[in-house]
Amino acid sequence: MSGGFAAASVVQRLDEGSWAGEIAPGWDIGGNADGGYTLAIAARAAAEAAGKPHPVTITAHYLSPGRPGPVRIEANVVRRGRRFATVAATLASKEGPVLALLGTFAELGPYDGPERVDAAPPGLPSPEDCHLLEPTDTFPPPFMGRVELRLHPDEVPFAGPVGPPRVSGWFRFPGGEPVDPLGLLVAVDAFPPTVFRAGLPVAWTPTLELTAHIRALPEPGWLRCAFTSRFISGGFLEEDGEVWDASGRLVAQSRQLALVPRS
Amino acid sequence: MSGGFAAASVVQRLDEGSWAGEIAPGWDIGGNADGGYTLAIAARAAAEAAGKPHPVTITAHYLSPGRPGPVRIEANVVRRGRRFATVAATLASKEGPVLALLGTFAELGPYDGPERVDAAPPGLPSPEDCHLLEPTDTFPPPFMGRVELRLHPDEVPFAGPVGPPRVSGWFRFPGGEPVDPLGLLVAVDAFPPTVFRAGLPVAWTPTLELTAHIRALPEPGWLRCAFTSRFISGGFLEEDGEVWDASGRLVAQSRQLALVPRS
Repeated sequence: MSGGFAAASVVQRLDEGSWAGEIAPGWDIGGNADGGYTLAIAARAAAEAAGKPHPVTITAHYLSPGRPGPVRIEANVVRRGRRFATVAATLASKEGPVLALLGTFAELGPYDGPERVDAAPPGLPSPEDCHLLEPTDTFPPPFMGRVELRLHPDEVPFAGPVGPPRVSGWFRFPGGEPVDPLGLLVAVDAFPPTVFRAGLPVAWTPTLELTAHIRALPEPGWLRCAFTSRFISGGFLEEDGEVWDASGRLVAQSRQLALVPRS
Repeated sequence: MSGGFAAASVVQRLDEGSWAGEIAPGWDIGGNADGGYTLAIAARAAAEAAGKPHPVTITAHYLSPGRPGPVRIEANVVRRGRRFATVAATLASKEGPVLALLGTFAELGPYDGPERVDAAPPGLPSPEDCHLLEPTDTFPPPFMGRVELRLHPDEVPFAGPVGPPRVSGWFRFPGGEPVDPLGLLVAVDAFPPTVFRAGLPVAWTPTLELTAHIRALPEPGWLRCAFTSRFISGGFLEEDGEVWDASGRLVAQSRQLALVPRS
């Protein structure tokens, strides 16, 4: 399977509640498919089941690592309303379940009600002045060949000074492929773990759960992203993400809970 | 049904995957059962299905208002591991589904790995110097008779000055009932909506989805809670919650996505 994100996350309906898909090669981090990418495959099937194109709020629980190869998605519409439809789904390989999701889908569009935003996009040097993460066989991982990440030069894990667990930078798909709401599910899980900047003895942080809210349809262009962890405690950490589009609007908000394995 | 939270959230196993419960009277806000309370009923059944006592991360999607009366919970173990078990469940009344949940359960306990916390509990006057929310038939709602909330005196919705969408205060169950991890699911959805402080024409904010991370077992005593919304936009708002125990430790983190209806 070649091509960009849309091609690598295609699903094909098999029957009323089942879809076939494939975890494409090259979307992995140390051999395990990126969690946002795997979620996007399942979400594409769930959106079809919902009959609504956009995941407004979607949660994945990660059950086992995703490896390249065929997968099957089973999706069940829990409730279908006029504006929203809620779907429960699982994505499984032949080895067993990879993730479970619960999502509510709708069609996002213009809105003219009350607005109040108490936040601003992260300040970033221009993409050219940021640190391009290029893929290698290990770290940065092969996945970095499927997305284009440019990190704030002061926030490059393992390279810059130890600092607070925060990573920010620019995100887009290569080759001018637009980032739609399913692509935003990749964006919210594409950056290196924040904890890698904190100087702690943590070499990996397997995600237990990721929730993303898609807050608006992104305008074309680079996305500004920022991820922060405030609570590395009790063997867990949360990572909060924000994705802002080229017009300066928040388009996605995310939080994941990850394990902090004892080293 | 009388008594406290534990009594009002009892479930009884009917068969391998089904439980009976009841939405007790008096836990409502304008006639609709509190979302955290309704989730706790379903989570109690899901924890039994999981064979693990504590929801580490749990997400509910709200499908229709919960009314007092019998409910049935169907819970399906998606994956059962040594340390974690993941469960998908629905809670339904005879009118239809009320909520769907996806949760990962474990047994929380001591941990001695890396720790870093970049946050502090909210500063609050003593409970005696905070604003006690007492139940009425309308607002504050009857639910306030089932929990004990004492709001920061500067952050009382509709009463104090218009301010940023933030509400903080103390939480406990009446009569000295301890707040366990299921009780924390009530705490994260017990406070008045943050948006009520922002001076916007918003009279209600139905919750689409609530995710809670239970980060530690709470010590006995008052809980300090703070809720903030930073993005009221596009017809949605998020509400981020933190709950800290008497020892000064974060015990729960929450985020919900709610609708901002056009007035």
